[in-house]
Amino acid sequence: MAIKFKRKETPYVFEAINEDGATCIIDANPSIGGKNKGLRPMELLASSVAGCASIDILLILGKQKIEPTLFEIDIETKRVEGIPAFFEEIKLIFKVNKEVNQEKLDRAISLTLEKYCSVSASLKESVQVIYEVNLI
Amino acid sequence: MAIKFKRKETPYVFEAINEDGATCIIDANPSIGGKNKGLRPMELLASSVAGCASIDILLILGKQKIEPTLFEIDIETKRVEGIPAFFEEIKLIFKVNKEVNQEKLDRAISLTLEKYCSVSASLKESVQVIYEVNLI
Repeated sequence: MAIKFKRKETPYVFEAINEDGATCIIDANPSIGGKNKGLRPMELLASSVAGCASIDILLILGKQKIEPTLFEIDIETKRVEGIPAFFEEIKLIFKVNKEVNQEKLDRAISLTLEKYCSVSASLKESVQVIYEVNLI
Repeated sequence: MAIKFKRKETPYVFEAINEDGATCIIDANPSIGGKNKGLRPMELLASSVAGCASIDILLILGKQKIEPTLFEIDIETKRVEGIPAFFEEIKLIFKVNKEVNQEKLDRAISLTLEKYCSVSASLKESVQVIYEVNLI
């Protein structure tokens, strides 16, 4: 993995580009001059957890021929007060269509978070990742 | 912080949306069906470190009336072999215009990584974040 990261606009609009040319815009909080052109770094960090977990969960379910028609996550976080305001907890609230077997879904999520997800594993000494499932 | 995260396209194209409506597309590695529509989760994680650090570094330099005209980072990573393949190391190679005082830049970077950056702090028990500076 090699990423090119550069300031695209002042004060805090950045672009990250991967080796295949895919890009991501990152911006700062409007309170310090952000322009809402992209997610903020801590939002991106939380989203990377959801993204990594989702891929592994869908891979596990796919092997069991389970293909959700609804797959969404509400991400909620707890940060410590002060500077740096790092994450204490990232909560993933899964919303999946009710035809999916809850036990198999639970098993896929817990396997992913405990064993497969490289992003969670990169955070695991510092941040607690918890989840909840809503079948809709 | 509250983020809505949803599957946008099968198999692994996701969208994260923050409370101000800013978005980010996340995709998987093409080897498992990714379409290169967005960064992959581990790339996003590394980019969030660069983004968070950049904002804090530019804030610190700005207070000293130092405004780089070039501000780029090459991001290199080391991951463990196996599953999960979490990060052992994220290296930020800063490329900044040579008119910027190297000592002040070094001080801003080390202060940021040790003290201010919330993303680095969220990772710090698990991942080593190191850096190098090239004045160009």
